[in-house]
Amino acid sequence: MHDAEYYILRQQHRERWDVEDQDLDERLAELREENDGRPPNIIHIMWDDMAFGDAGIPVINALRGFDTPSCNRMAEEGMMFGRLYTEPSCTPSRAAVLTGRHAVRSGMHTVAFPVESNGLSGEEVTTAEVLSDAGYATAFYGKWHLGDVEESYPHNQGFDETLFVPYNQVLVMYNQQGEAANAVIGARPETMPDDRYQLDDTFVPEGWVMAIEGRKGELGHEYGNREMSDWDPLEDECKKRTIEFIRRNAKADQPFYAAYWPNEATLSVAPIAERKTPARSIVAERFQYGTDAFIGEVMDELLDLGIAENTLLVVHADNGAMIHDPPSGMGQSEIMFRGGKADYWEGGIRVPAFAWWPGTIKPGQVVGDMIHETDLFTTFARLAGATENIPTGRIIDGLDQTSLLLNGDSFSRRDYNFVYTGPILAATIKGRWKRVWIGDHPGLVGAAFYDLYTDPREMFPKLIPLLHTSSAFSKMRKRHEIWKQEYPDSNSARGAPFTGLANPRPETVALSNPPADLEDLPFDPLQYIDFDLPWDGLDSDG
Amino acid sequence: MHDAEYYILRQQHRERWDVEDQDLDERLAELREENDGRPPNIIHIMWDDMAFGDAGIPVINALRGFDTPSCNRMAEEGMMFGRLYTEPSCTPSRAAVLTGRHAVRSGMHTVAFPVESNGLSGEEVTTAEVLSDAGYATAFYGKWHLGDVEESYPHNQGFDETLFVPYNQVLVMYNQQGEAANAVIGARPETMPDDRYQLDDTFVPEGWVMAIEGRKGELGHEYGNREMSDWDPLEDECKKRTIEFIRRNAKADQPFYAAYWPNEATLSVAPIAERKTPARSIVAERFQYGTDAFIGEVMDELLDLGIAENTLLVVHADNGAMIHDPPSGMGQSEIMFRGGKADYWEGGIRVPAFAWWPGTIKPGQVVGDMIHETDLFTTFARLAGATENIPTGRIIDGLDQTSLLLNGDSFSRRDYNFVYTGPILAATIKGRWKRVWIGDHPGLVGAAFYDLYTDPREMFPKLIPLLHTSSAFSKMRKRHEIWKQEYPDSNSARGAPFTGLANPRPETVALSNPPADLEDLPFDPLQYIDFDLPWDGLDSDG
Repeated sequence: MHDAEYYILRQQHRERWDVEDQDLDERLAELREENDGRPPNIIHIMWDDMAFGDAGIPVINALRGFDTPSCNRMAEEGMMFGRLYTEPSCTPSRAAVLTGRHAVRSGMHTVAFPVESNGLSGEEVTTAEVLSDAGYATAFYGKWHLGDVEESYPHNQGFDETLFVPYNQVLVMYNQQGEAANAVIGARPETMPDDRYQLDDTFVPEGWVMAIEGRKGELGHEYGNREMSDWDPLEDECKKRTIEFIRRNAKADQPFYAAYWPNEATLSVAPIAERKTPARSIVAERFQYGTDAFIGEVMDELLDLGIAENTLLVVHADNGAMIHDPPSGMGQSEIMFRGGKADYWEGGIRVPAFAWWPGTIKPGQVVGDMIHETDLFTTFARLAGATENIPTGRIIDGLDQTSLLLNGDSFSRRDYNFVYTGPILAATIKGRWKRVWIGDHPGLVGAAFYDLYTDPREMFPKLIPLLHTSSAFSKMRKRHEIWKQEYPDSNSARGAPFTGLANPRPETVALSNPPADLEDLPFDPLQYIDFDLPWDGLDSDG
Repeated sequence: MHDAEYYILRQQHRERWDVEDQDLDERLAELREENDGRPPNIIHIMWDDMAFGDAGIPVINALRGFDTPSCNRMAEEGMMFGRLYTEPSCTPSRAAVLTGRHAVRSGMHTVAFPVESNGLSGEEVTTAEVLSDAGYATAFYGKWHLGDVEESYPHNQGFDETLFVPYNQVLVMYNQQGEAANAVIGARPETMPDDRYQLDDTFVPEGWVMAIEGRKGELGHEYGNREMSDWDPLEDECKKRTIEFIRRNAKADQPFYAAYWPNEATLSVAPIAERKTPARSIVAERFQYGTDAFIGEVMDELLDLGIAENTLLVVHADNGAMIHDPPSGMGQSEIMFRGGKADYWEGGIRVPAFAWWPGTIKPGQVVGDMIHETDLFTTFARLAGATENIPTGRIIDGLDQTSLLLNGDSFSRRDYNFVYTGPILAATIKGRWKRVWIGDHPGLVGAAFYDLYTDPREMFPKLIPLLHTSSAFSKMRKRHEIWKQEYPDSNSARGAPFTGLANPRPETVALSNPPADLEDLPFDPLQYIDFDLPWDGLDSDG
C-alpha cells in the first residue's frame, strides 16, 4: 500500500504508466540478459548534512571555496536531482530511506543520542532484507544512527556484513576541533575534571558503544574502545571495506548492495592535518578530500572492474545543512533554500543528489522532478526484480521511480510530500505549492501557503493568491490521516541497549540493569524505556 | 587613476601582469589583423533586477519554473561570471558601467524618479564617447534611467543614435498588471479621480517624458505621447533597431558598440497575453520570452552575419532582484545570496552575468573571480584599442579585465569592492572577506565581518574569527577616503528638465519655469535644484 495520495495520481496516469512500465521491464530484462542474468548492483552513499547546491554545480563550487569534482562528474555523466526530498534529520532520514516509509511510521522520527534503549524495529523490512532475499550480497559501512537495541543493528536488519556507528559523530567532539568549539561537554564523564558540586553520577551515561562490527546471524563485536585512537582510522576502514566488498562480489559475479554512509562530512573525523580548500572549513575539507574523493574512487573502481554498466550508484545527503547551532568552523550555510537540518523548510529537506549508471542513465541530465528518499527503497527493489519482497499490509511511502531514472526529466510519479518534524506533520507539498500546518491560527486558514517557483525561499506566505489550494491541501491531509487509522504508525523497538555483543565492557552490561545503588528507588528505574514523550507542537519558526 | 587599492595589487603582481599583457596585446593584434584591421564589436545587454543564479544554471531553471536557454547557451559556449558586482540599484549601476566610476563619484548615486532636474553630467566620459572617438558607431536602445536634463541624454553622451526611456518603467504601472497591483498611485494626475480634499495641484508633476529619440548633435524628439499605446510597442522597437544597427554596421565593415538595456524584464511592458512558463510570474515570462530570447536572436544574428568571432557580447543584470516591496506577481526572489536591489548585501550587488566571443573566449568556463561592472568600461576601451581615450585626472574604478576574458578563471585583477548605498560607503569587500560599515557600534569594532566562502548568505557576522581583518579593512578604507580628498566626487548635472527637445509639450516646457501661480512665493521655487538632501545614514538592516 502507498499513501492515499498516490492512488489519486495513479487514477489519472495509469494508462501512460502502464505503457512506460512495459517498456521499462523490457529494457531491464535486456540489460539483465546482457549481464548473464544478474540484476544490477546497487551502491548507496549518503552523507551527513548538506544544503542543496553545495555539490555538483561548478559556479557554486567557485563561490564556496571548495570543489566537488566527483559529484560534478556524476552530474555530467549521469543525473542531478533538483528536488530529492529527505526527512529533515539524521535518524528519520536513515529510517525512511531503508524502509521506504516516512520515519513517523516506524517510530524513528527523532534523532538518537546516547543512550536511547530504542531503535529500528525488527518488524520493519529494509532494503537490505528485500535485496538479500533476492540473492544480493549486502554490506553496511559507516554511520548507522538507527538505535542502540540489538534488533536495530544492521546485521540484524538484512546486511551480511557491517561496521557501523550506532549514533552519530559524538565521539569526534573530543578531538582538537571539538574541544576548541566546546562542542560536547560531559558525554564522556571520564574526561571531565572533578566538580565538587556534582551530586548525581548517573546523569550522563557510561558504557555506550562507539562502533560495532557484525555479521548476519552472529553476535556483534564492539569495535575499538571508544577512544579517539580507535575513531580516527574508522572512516578509512569503512571505505576500505566498501571497496573490498565491491571487488570481492564483482569477481564472484555476485550481485551486491553496498551502503556506505560516511561520518566524515559533517565534523572532522580526525583533526585536519593540512587544509587545502580555499574555504578551509570542516565541510569543505572533509567533503572534497573525503566523501567526494571516495565517490570518484568508487566510480573508477566500477569502471576498472568492468561492472559500471550493471551498477547503479546513488549518492545524496541525508538532510539539509547543519545551520542551527553548528560547531564553530563547520562552514555550512543555507545556499538556495531557507532553513537547514531539522527544518520543514525546503533547506531542511532538499539535498544534493546524483545518480550514475553508464549506459542506462543518460549523461548530463538535470531533473526538476520531485522524488523522495523513500522512493529509493521501492525503486531498488524493482531494479533487483524483488518487488514482491516489499511487505504488504502496511504503508510504503516509496514510489517506484524507475521511469525517472531511465527516462529522465518529468517522468517522476510523485508530486507530493508529507513533511514530518518528529511525529508532527509540519507541512504538505503538492507540486509547486506548499502548505505549512504548524503555527497556523486556529479558526483561520492563515497565510501558510507558499509558491515554490516564485518564492523558492519561502519568505512570503500567501493567503489570497493561493487560497484555492486550501481545501485541496486539507483534503489531501485528511486522506493521509484517515489512511493512518487503517494502517497506524508503528513503534520503534525498545529494550536494553547494547545487548547482542560478544565482547561487552562491564559498563555496557550495566546499562541493561538498574544501577545497583538505585535499587531501592520508589519506582521502576527502567519504566521510562516504553514511555513516549508528549510533543507540544512547534511554533511556525520551527 | 584607479582607486588606491589597485596600486596595492599592482605592486604585488606587476611582473606577472606585464608578461600577461604582452601576450594579450599580441593576441588582440592577431585578431585585428584577421579582421582587416577592425577592432572587435561590442554589444552590451543589461537588464533590470535579477538575482544571481536565476539565469544560466539549468538545475535552478528547473526549480524556478522558467528557462533561460540563451544565458545557458552563453555559459556553455562562453563564460559565466560567479562574482560580477554591480552598484545596488538602477541609476547608480547605469552610471557606473558607462563611466567606469562608482556612481558616487559622478553624483549619480540615487535612483531617479520623475521629475529630478538632474542627470549624468557632460563632464563624465562614457564608454560611448571613448569608443566613438576610436571610430566606433554607437547606439543606445532601452532604459537609460540617467536623468532628465539635456546633457544627460545618451545622444549627448557619445551615442550616435538612441531611443531611450529617461526614467524607469513608471508608465507601465498603469497597465492591467500595474493597476491590479496598485503599483503607482497618482504619477499621472490625469488618471486620478477628483478628490475634494486635494489642495495642491503641483505635488505630482505633469509634463514628464516617457521616451526620447535622438541623434548625436541634434535635438531630441519626444517619442509617443506618454500613453500605454505608445509604451506597448517600445520594447519591440528597441530590439528591432538594435538588430538593424548591428546589421547595417556589419555590412558596412564598421566597428560598432551597441547598448541595449531592456525595460521588459522587471515589469510587463504590455499585459502578458499568454503565460507560458510554469512559474507564470512576470519575470519568468518577460525574461524567458523577452530578454533571453532576444539574446539568442543576437547571437544567431552575429553568426549569420559572420561577425561573431569579432564581437564581444556581454550580458548581465543591473542589480539584484527586486525583493523589497515588489509589485505583486513579479516572482522575483533571493536565490543564493541575501538581500536584493538596493541592498549592500551580496544579493543586491551580485548578478547573473555572461560573456560570449566565439574563438576568443573559451567555451564552458565558470569564473569565480571578482569583477565589477566598472571594469567593463576599461576593458571595452582596451579591446577597442582606445585606452588612451580614458580621461586622466580623475578616479576610474574600472580595471582592465582583458586577461580574465581571454585567460579565464583566476585571472582577474580585482580582489576588492567598495559598496555604496546612495552616497554612503556601506561595505567593503576584500576577497572572501566583507566588512559592513553601517550600523557598527561607535567605539567598538562590532561584529560586522563576514566570510563569504563559509557564510555566503551573510547570516553570521563574526568578530573574533575575522578580527585580523579589522585593521586591514580600516587601512583600505582610509586609503580610499584619502584618495577622495585628492580626487573628490563630482556633482551630477542640474538644470531644467526636458529641455533640448524639438517637440516639447506645453506641460513639458512649463517644467522649466516656476508655475505661474506660484510666482509670488516668498522664496525661489527653483532653488531646490542645486540643493543636495542630507543623508542620515542607515541602520545595519539597510
